[in-house]
Amino acid sequence: MKLDRSRTLIELSQLLNCEFVGEVNLFASGINEIHLVEPGDIVFVDHPKYFDTTLNSAATVIIINKMVECPAGKGLLIHDEPFTAFNELINHFRPFEFSQHRIDPTSVIHPKAKVHPTASIGPKAVIGSNAIIHANVSIGHHCSVGENTIIHANTTIGSDAFYYKTRPEKFEKLISCGRVIIEKDIEIGANCTIDRGVTGDTVIGEGTKFDNLVHIGHDTKIGRQCLFAAQVGVAGCVTVEDKVTMWGQVGCIANVTIGSGAVILAKSGIGKSLKGGKTYFGSPAGEARKKLKELATLSQLSK
Amino acid sequence: MKLDRSRTLIELSQLLNCEFVGEVNLFASGINEIHLVEPGDIVFVDHPKYFDTTLNSAATVIIINKMVECPAGKGLLIHDEPFTAFNELINHFRPFEFSQHRIDPTSVIHPKAKVHPTASIGPKAVIGSNAIIHANVSIGHHCSVGENTIIHANTTIGSDAFYYKTRPEKFEKLISCGRVIIEKDIEIGANCTIDRGVTGDTVIGEGTKFDNLVHIGHDTKIGRQCLFAAQVGVAGCVTVEDKVTMWGQVGCIANVTIGSGAVILAKSGIGKSLKGGKTYFGSPAGEARKKLKELATLSQLSK
Amino acid sequence: MKLDRSRTLIELSQLLNCEFVGEVNLFASGINEIHLVEPGDIVFVDHPKYFDTTLNSAATVIIINKMVECPAGKGLLIHDEPFTAFNELINHFRPFEFSQHRIDPTSVIHPKAKVHPTASIGPKAVIGSNAIIHANVSIGHHCSVGENTIIHANTTIGSDAFYYKTRPEKFEKLISCGRVIIEKDIEIGANCTIDRGVTGDTVIGEGTKFDNLVHIGHDTKIGRQCLFAAQVGVAGCVTVEDKVTMWGQVGCIANVTIGSGAVILAKSGIGKSLKGGKTYFGSPAGEARKKLKELATLSQLSK
Repeated sequence: MKLDRSRTLIELSQLLNCEFVGEVNLFASGINEIHLVEPGDIVFVDHPKYFDTTLNSAATVIIINKMVECPAGKGLLIHDEPFTAFNELINHFRPFEFSQHRIDPTSVIHPKAKVHPTASIGPKAVIGSNAIIHANVSIGHHCSVGENTIIHANTTIGSDAFYYKTRPEKFEKLISCGRVIIEKDIEIGANCTIDRGVTGDTVIGEGTKFDNLVHIGHDTKIGRQCLFAAQVGVAGCVTVEDKVTMWGQVGCIANVTIGSGAVILAKSGIGKSLKGGKTYFGSPAGEARKKLKELATLSQLSK
Repeated sequence: MKLDRSRTLIELSQLLNCEFVGEVNLFASGINEIHLVEPGDIVFVDHPKYFDTTLNSAATVIIINKMVECPAGKGLLIHDEPFTAFNELINHFRPFEFSQHRIDPTSVIHPKAKVHPTASIGPKAVIGSNAIIHANVSIGHHCSVGENTIIHANTTIGSDAFYYKTRPEKFEKLISCGRVIIEKDIEIGANCTIDRGVTGDTVIGEGTKFDNLVHIGHDTKIGRQCLFAAQVGVAGCVTVEDKVTMWGQVGCIANVTIGSGAVILAKSGIGKSLKGGKTYFGSPAGEARKKLKELATLSQLSK
Repeated sequence: MKLDRSRTLIELSQLLNCEFVGEVNLFASGINEIHLVEPGDIVFVDHPKYFDTTLNSAATVIIINKMVECPAGKGLLIHDEPFTAFNELINHFRPFEFSQHRIDPTSVIHPKAKVHPTASIGPKAVIGSNAIIHANVSIGHHCSVGENTIIHANTTIGSDAFYYKTRPEKFEKLISCGRVIIEKDIEIGANCTIDRGVTGDTVIGEGTKFDNLVHIGHDTKIGRQCLFAAQVGVAGCVTVEDKVTMWGQVGCIANVTIGSGAVILAKSGIGKSLKGGKTYFGSPAGEARKKLKELATLSQLSK
């Protein structure tokens, strides 16, 4: 997420009421998770295991729970609870906007878009030309729907990421300030759910088609011209390249990449990254030929 | 789909701006896919593999991309892109009606039906006596719900078929002009999705009960007194006969038949037609006894 | 379900127009299924196999289809169709209330709760302080949502139990008069469905988090600080103890108990009760280590 305007390290330390290390006038212009950071970004780290990666990342400002040596050109914000501090910054820069309107007045709907009288469009959401938004669809704040796109009834675009920090006595929610970007020429079936990115974007690529009851997790990128049949579920932070087909009820674990042109047969469970151009089956999914041979072997042995 | 009135072959050729072969005054009265055609119907074919089947089908008018010999009593419309031409005819005879009303004024709701103030009823939809339509349900255009039927909240009836032609650079959508017919004494759970037929009807038989989050694909026929537990998904063009039970999270591939009285155990994946009166398990599903024996064999071998 | 006020055995026999055995002035104060009965409750039994259990249960009044000896301190209502009679009592004491209002005037919404202008709140439902109810959520009659709870768009709370008696020619619905109780500090994802109890309550425990498209059946009790990923489905009458994790697309059969701290890996199908503190996998689910070894054995044998 980009900030509305840049903030200095000292401003940030005052906001969080914490110490800082680094140049007072260092500027931060965005806020992101570690796997998305760009120069100018604020990031957080709270486990020594990830200190080095984070300190050496592109991030400009690092919220950290230990006084460590500050890398050149960066700033540190020393805070007991970096996760909580990160949430504080999100709340400050993109405070949760609960719309009191079915169609929020800050949304932008193209005059050639069709929006059913029961659909909801949140704050700062954008609906493109010739998009068709069916009954009871909910488009969350800051999400966008491209031109020539159809979204069927009762679908939810922009629900929060399923992302918590496990504390001894509760789960602490990481506030989602990212977006869902639905490119153009897309069709999303009925009763689907697409979560927003935590700080970045969940993206559905041009020309992709989803059947009903499909779930897409936060920060996942779906390529162009993919086909997902009904009840497919893809977890967060997944990269699905172009022209991937997933048949009915396929599931996919978080943080993996599915190569271009891969075909995943129905009911498979993807547990690791898969190379493109091949057909997969099973749970955990492997090459279909091998998995089907295994089933034949078992059938033979059982006789 | 039946046309509002019959059209001559010459009228159709003018509509599509294409050549024709056959009697000028031949009448077409309907439009259908090949597996549904009846005498009087218009159908399309664009692959030589299916030319014979289509030319010998009950269809009266065939949109085809090659000049072939015209069977007696039939007419041909010669068009480079039969799929696109078929869509043009659907758009002409049943133009997409996007309602601007929550309850479309052309819908017919029985005075003894109960419709929640947040439910949507599309153009020409019909709701029968004593039907109960819960919050945020969407009943699409031309769909019908029989008497004594309950539809729980957030369910979508009449979303479009998931049906595309793969072009080199995009998926071309086959426009759905069919309906969903929900007969009487039926209960449909919350957040279910039932797609309309492409040109024919998706049918849910009398006395059948669905739990929540069930998906039914286009043109599928579900028999009488079936029980589908939560999260079952049945693809398009499936025939499920009477008194079939599918337990939770069962999936079923397209174009198969499930015989009367079959029981499919939870999480099974149906990959072929199944005979009635038996119990099935596994993915791909087989007779439960055999599949459970295979699992026991594997457990034994692994020790 | 508790009755609004106690009824005597004779009042009940008059209501049902049936014979009774026992003291005329015996009082009934509630109505429940056999697994939930407490002293004061009315229960029904219609199969000789369950006569003894029911007659010896805590129930005070038993609707039964055979004249049997009446246990001391209890009353019997002799009725040909106890199931139908039970439904009659539910209809009498808690008649189905179909709200004509988006926000029913008998609901109680805390002034600090945020309810989206498209969400529905049914009769006598209660929404706690700082609860956030997103677009198109449906909260059914008599259900309650605790403080600091978030319910994402298009979720259905309080759909009816999927519970029928199989008659030769139809399924007879058992009318659901129970509730859904969502305790505090809970997050429920988008397009989830939580069924109400038949006569008791479906309960979601404090601090528990659900991702999208999760289904919970009637009378199921989910403990505290559980995490359910997307598309998990748990059937009716299940007890899930505290701190249980179910990953994506896990399914769970009815009437089992999942022990505290159990972790169920993605796509598993739970077919029996599972002890706490362990990790499970497969369908049917077993200890993950054993199941993964079986898969390795099969892969080896197939080479």
